[in-house]
Amino acid sequence: MLLIKGGTVVTAERSVRADVLCDDNGLIAQVGPALEAPTGCEIVDAAGLLVMPGGIDPHTHMEMPFMGATASDDFYTGTAAGLAGGTTSIIDFVIPDRGGSLLDAWKDWRAKAEKAAADYGFHVAVTHWDEQVHADMATLVHDCGVNSFKHFMAYKNALMVQDEAFLLSMRRAGELGALCTVHAENGDAVAYLQQMLLAEGQTGPAAHPLSRPASVEGEAASRAIALASLSGTPLYVVHVSTREATRAIAEARLRGQHVYGEVLPQHLIIDETVYRDPDWLTAARHVMSPPFREKSHQEALWGGLVSGQLQTTATDHCCFCKEQKEQGVADFTRIPNGTPGIEDRMSVLWHYGVATGRLTPELFVAVTSTNTAKIFNLHPRKGTIVPGADADIVLWDPQATRTISAGTHHQNVDYNIYEGLTVSGVAQKTISQGKVVWDQGILRAERGAGRYVERPAFTPVSRTSSSA
Amino acid sequence: MLLIKGGTVVTAERSVRADVLCDDNGLIAQVGPALEAPTGCEIVDAAGLLVMPGGIDPHTHMEMPFMGATASDDFYTGTAAGLAGGTTSIIDFVIPDRGGSLLDAWKDWRAKAEKAAADYGFHVAVTHWDEQVHADMATLVHDCGVNSFKHFMAYKNALMVQDEAFLLSMRRAGELGALCTVHAENGDAVAYLQQMLLAEGQTGPAAHPLSRPASVEGEAASRAIALASLSGTPLYVVHVSTREATRAIAEARLRGQHVYGEVLPQHLIIDETVYRDPDWLTAARHVMSPPFREKSHQEALWGGLVSGQLQTTATDHCCFCKEQKEQGVADFTRIPNGTPGIEDRMSVLWHYGVATGRLTPELFVAVTSTNTAKIFNLHPRKGTIVPGADADIVLWDPQATRTISAGTHHQNVDYNIYEGLTVSGVAQKTISQGKVVWDQGILRAERGAGRYVERPAFTPVSRTSSSA
Amino acid sequence: MLLIKGGTVVTAERSVRADVLCDDNGLIAQVGPALEAPTGCEIVDAAGLLVMPGGIDPHTHMEMPFMGATASDDFYTGTAAGLAGGTTSIIDFVIPDRGGSLLDAWKDWRAKAEKAAADYGFHVAVTHWDEQVHADMATLVHDCGVNSFKHFMAYKNALMVQDEAFLLSMRRAGELGALCTVHAENGDAVAYLQQMLLAEGQTGPAAHPLSRPASVEGEAASRAIALASLSGTPLYVVHVSTREATRAIAEARLRGQHVYGEVLPQHLIIDETVYRDPDWLTAARHVMSPPFREKSHQEALWGGLVSGQLQTTATDHCCFCKEQKEQGVADFTRIPNGTPGIEDRMSVLWHYGVATGRLTPELFVAVTSTNTAKIFNLHPRKGTIVPGADADIVLWDPQATRTISAGTHHQNVDYNIYEGLTVSGVAQKTISQGKVVWDQGILRAERGAGRYVERPAFTPVSRTSSSA
Amino acid sequence: MLLIKGGTVVTAERSVRADVLCDDNGLIAQVGPALEAPTGCEIVDAAGLLVMPGGIDPHTHMEMPFMGATASDDFYTGTAAGLAGGTTSIIDFVIPDRGGSLLDAWKDWRAKAEKAAADYGFHVAVTHWDEQVHADMATLVHDCGVNSFKHFMAYKNALMVQDEAFLLSMRRAGELGALCTVHAENGDAVAYLQQMLLAEGQTGPAAHPLSRPASVEGEAASRAIALASLSGTPLYVVHVSTREATRAIAEARLRGQHVYGEVLPQHLIIDETVYRDPDWLTAARHVMSPPFREKSHQEALWGGLVSGQLQTTATDHCCFCKEQKEQGVADFTRIPNGTPGIEDRMSVLWHYGVATGRLTPELFVAVTSTNTAKIFNLHPRKGTIVPGADADIVLWDPQATRTISAGTHHQNVDYNIYEGLTVSGVAQKTISQGKVVWDQGILRAERGAGRYVERPAFTPVSRTSSSA
Repeated sequence: MLLIKGGTVVTAERSVRADVLCDDNGLIAQVGPALEAPTGCEIVDAAGLLVMPGGIDPHTHMEMPFMGATASDDFYTGTAAGLAGGTTSIIDFVIPDRGGSLLDAWKDWRAKAEKAAADYGFHVAVTHWDEQVHADMATLVHDCGVNSFKHFMAYKNALMVQDEAFLLSMRRAGELGALCTVHAENGDAVAYLQQMLLAEGQTGPAAHPLSRPASVEGEAASRAIALASLSGTPLYVVHVSTREATRAIAEARLRGQHVYGEVLPQHLIIDETVYRDPDWLTAARHVMSPPFREKSHQEALWGGLVSGQLQTTATDHCCFCKEQKEQGVADFTRIPNGTPGIEDRMSVLWHYGVATGRLTPELFVAVTSTNTAKIFNLHPRKGTIVPGADADIVLWDPQATRTISAGTHHQNVDYNIYEGLTVSGVAQKTISQGKVVWDQGILRAERGAGRYVERPAFTPVSRTSSSA
Repeated sequence: MLLIKGGTVVTAERSVRADVLCDDNGLIAQVGPALEAPTGCEIVDAAGLLVMPGGIDPHTHMEMPFMGATASDDFYTGTAAGLAGGTTSIIDFVIPDRGGSLLDAWKDWRAKAEKAAADYGFHVAVTHWDEQVHADMATLVHDCGVNSFKHFMAYKNALMVQDEAFLLSMRRAGELGALCTVHAENGDAVAYLQQMLLAEGQTGPAAHPLSRPASVEGEAASRAIALASLSGTPLYVVHVSTREATRAIAEARLRGQHVYGEVLPQHLIIDETVYRDPDWLTAARHVMSPPFREKSHQEALWGGLVSGQLQTTATDHCCFCKEQKEQGVADFTRIPNGTPGIEDRMSVLWHYGVATGRLTPELFVAVTSTNTAKIFNLHPRKGTIVPGADADIVLWDPQATRTISAGTHHQNVDYNIYEGLTVSGVAQKTISQGKVVWDQGILRAERGAGRYVERPAFTPVSRTSSSA
Repeated sequence: MLLIKGGTVVTAERSVRADVLCDDNGLIAQVGPALEAPTGCEIVDAAGLLVMPGGIDPHTHMEMPFMGATASDDFYTGTAAGLAGGTTSIIDFVIPDRGGSLLDAWKDWRAKAEKAAADYGFHVAVTHWDEQVHADMATLVHDCGVNSFKHFMAYKNALMVQDEAFLLSMRRAGELGALCTVHAENGDAVAYLQQMLLAEGQTGPAAHPLSRPASVEGEAASRAIALASLSGTPLYVVHVSTREATRAIAEARLRGQHVYGEVLPQHLIIDETVYRDPDWLTAARHVMSPPFREKSHQEALWGGLVSGQLQTTATDHCCFCKEQKEQGVADFTRIPNGTPGIEDRMSVLWHYGVATGRLTPELFVAVTSTNTAKIFNLHPRKGTIVPGADADIVLWDPQATRTISAGTHHQNVDYNIYEGLTVSGVAQKTISQGKVVWDQGILRAERGAGRYVERPAFTPVSRTSSSA
Repeated sequence: MLLIKGGTVVTAERSVRADVLCDDNGLIAQVGPALEAPTGCEIVDAAGLLVMPGGIDPHTHMEMPFMGATASDDFYTGTAAGLAGGTTSIIDFVIPDRGGSLLDAWKDWRAKAEKAAADYGFHVAVTHWDEQVHADMATLVHDCGVNSFKHFMAYKNALMVQDEAFLLSMRRAGELGALCTVHAENGDAVAYLQQMLLAEGQTGPAAHPLSRPASVEGEAASRAIALASLSGTPLYVVHVSTREATRAIAEARLRGQHVYGEVLPQHLIIDETVYRDPDWLTAARHVMSPPFREKSHQEALWGGLVSGQLQTTATDHCCFCKEQKEQGVADFTRIPNGTPGIEDRMSVLWHYGVATGRLTPELFVAVTSTNTAKIFNLHPRKGTIVPGADADIVLWDPQATRTISAGTHHQNVDYNIYEGLTVSGVAQKTISQGKVVWDQGILRAERGAGRYVERPAFTPVSRTSSSA
């Protein structure tokens, strides 16, 4: 048992001075003022600290095979790094081979993830449509604890789905009570622009953002929202990086449509000038999709978060090292897409969000944990601090500072996009399943301690097309 | 002491099976599964019921002198009727005489409200600007528990403030940590249209909505938001009734501005056709401002609530009886503006909101209670169910139905705008300060039992004009 | 020679009392007050009449093979009917077989059109992409007088192009100085909805609009505009029928993008209730795509025309008779899509546009003739009344009325969607190539008198992708 | 008589090789190819030149008393400078004293303007409302050739009108067939911000734009449009300088409302950084209202012009010399507002508009002359080149360049905001009333040669408020 004493418990709802008692099953037993410590109970001093639900990162790609490489952080190293930063759960992605079985892929990913140090779940990608997919979706929802499916409108000739398949998948998900998520970039447009740029001799990372301009995301987000409206199902848009997509989501919501949007901290603070870095590798290390944007988009993303129109933050954590990035040295379209970030999400968001006055601590908890738990049906097991919930907790020191560096981070990758940034707001301790796994610089992550978290289905959506 | 057993506690955050123990000080003592009843404790059976925070109505006008009449529900009858409908607190309005002292007016209203049966607070109207107003605002905030000021952009030559006074008041409020609220209709435009309509011989209630079209509200809301952005202060727009105002609020929020919007249930379900009722009195009884609107606005308001862009619901409860309404029989501009509604707000909103699937029970709690408590700094004393909070609770029967009628309501007024409507969702019991004051049709409201609730100031806003 | 005396010459620019002298080459020789008649010159009395440029219909489908049928109006009957209504030129569509040669198709259509009674040109459809298409486009522009190419985002597995092919075609057109036009409906979404509706047993015409809701057009229009922005080329959106598409066009134009929109008069005045007609055939005869819409879209279309954001009017004239429509009696997706209208476009638009005060006579000329001539590079040969222009003129009687009926119309089809409508504004005489071919009810259209009108290329667009 | 030979006549409609013959009454007699010169006719060689309608500047303030100073360019020097730049007509403003007679003021201005070298007309400002104003408006329209009235929403306690007076004036103008124009800035907000800035010690020109941010104009433009919709009258918004106002106008137009917008070239190319010039005088010389804006607004203004949503260009020409500007040396609110520009409008707009490819030559003519003539009912007397029109013509050399400088300009003011700018596009010759008054650097402007141009009323607007 573990008693967290003297802190301020911050939930999405409110902040209150209270102690938190965790039991031996890894659950929160009691929350209240001046709790007495049961015999033998370990006591953690939280004076001056904020006691918050552990972060949930709903968008990671551990050891993902992609573009001829495999992401360097595996489920152990990646989740361990997350714990060091206050993130106690992830939702990763199962990506079937083209035309392959969703169920088989899910099994593969389950096996890979056994080594995880923190709790995890999976979204499963639907990249084509046939009877087997239709059947597998039911199995995944009913028997495997999957309640969300991912769709790529980008990556033509690889992961991209056509609109009709996307519609059929959304309809199927609606029947099953699952939520559809979407990577919104127009893959045809990207393919066209890549061709043009290469034909013009633009082969370096500076061409990457030119091949995926903001309108390419805005278009796809608007289209996805229109399609979701036709299928009558909710929609979750991953890594929203533009004013256009933010606006499309907000407008749909204002019409009463159930649409959610996710933001990555890197899009909130890094802009497209990184791609013009004279050092090829520096530029290439920022190659991810959607790319970093012209600075004015950042205000739109902050506005989305502050107004509640964008609900979650994630990282799209997907690490590739120098030699992996270098496979695209002659052709930017072959640079493996992805950036690290799971370890720093919470600090960066606190620093730029809370310390600047944009976000209250309560809203910080909402966008790093609670909203994600609710949207993906993990709440109140995850995402809050109440009796009965998982004892996944971060003790946050709002005054402390640290300087981010690849030299000291725990991510298994040879760079950090926030290198040298000194942030205020630090995870002093992280508690997972009731155990202190990160303690002021000491990481006690345990290989395999993470559990697969089944996420139950939602109430199915039923409607006829004639009501569309 | 009072133990509410066997119900489902619904807060804005979540629904959970739990018991609630209220102590003898009128506070919630404990919330949890299977609480034991202390000796001598009264037990209330909540099986099958939802245990929700009592409603807060942030917009009422009890016994208000207005347009030559005085609202017929006084602080006792009005708050008692509220209790019968599950509303346990109100925030009413202090309206100083033209050029008069804010402080004196506040004292007058305090005296009038002594008879209230439920807890209450006050917004204070600022209708002109001078040094005394500037000074009184500080006194009200520092010494009187007032943290919100009201501004009328309508009612020319009566309550209306010019933009400059509005700006100075917002700036002052910002310095003091108070929130400004606004009635957004362009009073000049209304005055112009009234003249034109009367000159054309349009003297009946059918002219009322023509004198205050949707654009008149949309314009004023947009203007108020622009002004609030200049003063650098948050803004709360009362009784939003149009697509235009909803959109203006949503867009400002998306830019990161702190703007809130309130909806009245009557605007969600009643449309402008009521003004064309052949019976003069029926039409006149619907005369309120802003008026009922063309039906398509209703979807916009629902969209605003569902998406979180409009946060609260209120009633603008302001009752005038037949003979009062009849003072405008020859001239619609002399019909006292106002409709009753405090008793039915929660049922009507449940019926049209939750029973139709638009709102979850949690969102219902948010928009009837929690959000209001947060926005007006009453939270967590009001608006939630946690230990230490006021024991203001409604036991809600989501399956029960009742038919609304002036013949049976408790409001001191001779009609009901929902006359004959059978709603599902009924307050079975209402608990105020830990006592059952409404019990399945028996109203035990006590004259004078209501307390004046001081609302503390927020953190002051400080900024220079050069950052505008 | 022909002298039109005593009328008011109305151009897009202004109205002025003037006579018009046409020479023997079918050209306008002189325009001015009180022209003297050369010896032997025929004189046409235009007193009380408006002398306007003949209408140009940029969207017709004469004798088009489509959905297993062939449109019943051929190039002779269709153009003759146009002359009876004041329309003196058309731009029809060359539709190659799937994968077929653009050039061969153009030759086929040239041959079919030899019989035309009025001048004509062609847009050529690009429905797939390969090297031959790339080459044929150049031939068509350089050698064949084609300066516009059509793209279908609808009709999946038939005419629909993928976004990448569309982009490549736009880029190619830009290089060649040709304009791209687009039918904006999301074909995947339509295919999905058709499947769902048929599966639900909805097989009648009432399902037609449900299979192509407004958002399906709005989405596609927005996407087409985004893609055109990437290719850096102008775009012309055919048959805009929704608020959504109108708004997308207006917003793009406001950003400085060169986008044009076309409206059909039928969309301005007929609404979706026609599909619920109890008579199957009546409903089926209104089946066209995009379908008739909910009434509120009509105001948006009028607003687009009045504000200059939509520039042209056309008919999408495509006639199918009773037995042809009946091939879809068991399945609405097999009803050949199309409605007649070339004969009535100008009268209907005058009646609902000018007679109601929405459009000035000058704007009427602009949207029925001048703007089309400018956009498709026919101006000033067509679309205005100046010396040197083709003597294609309509003498318009703004006061006269006529009742539209299939019983009296000249279109080769067994119904008229305006049946029974009495319009004010009638083509009293139509002059084509300087000859009176329609004279107060007498049609003197001559088979084969129409000429193929070559349309020269525009200045090519050149830009690199990096400026996208 | 004067024959302009060998040029390309450019109108808003088209460009064509043609000669232009001007008669001795100052009218255009003939336009056509290869005209023969009548005996004794002066011949002007226009080879390689564009023959365009002379510019019309609908917004000038010659010798205006304002803020304690009198604008330094009088009607003679100002119009002469206009001729040197290709502008052959102006519409200036009659500004009555507070509460004073409109008619008397008009007479004063008529007298002052007798010395004008080019044709002129007047807008008359309505700055208060009473019966005399109501009566004077009729006299001005019926007897004085005035068809437009100006309203200031800015300049509180000076020129500003309240919304009700503005509404009454618009309604009255509608009855009379006159057009209302508006300076859209919220005067209350400006007064508030000026107070705040001065109180903070911000007394220099850098505070000027802070006292009138973009939202202050956007708000007022939106409000004016909403009010015009209530009065049912068209509206012309002068000197639109922001994205917000442009968008408000475009949206209103798309709803079918008759709203027009005017742009000043200085807002298209100069941005707010000028106010931070270290030299006080340089900064002060740019003080005008609305102020120069953050650069991104410029693209919106160009988009407005290119898409036809903003229709005219003007200068707000209002000159104050060094010692006049210096009256505000200790207080930016006392710097007389205004910048010169009548001489350079056309060159600057050609250089940045046509030479860059944004505007075609035809659109240049439309926005510098034709649209203004149409909107203010001067067309076709002014604004085009047709027989019967005034022979006000500019021979434009699109290839020539000149460098703008106060050292060489003809404006009676000691600086030029375009100082040092080399523009391509030069008025080689200007013809006014059929006479060459500017010839390659030689100015032959004649004091008093300008005529007062009566502008006839439009068709009155009639509607009842109940249709509002």
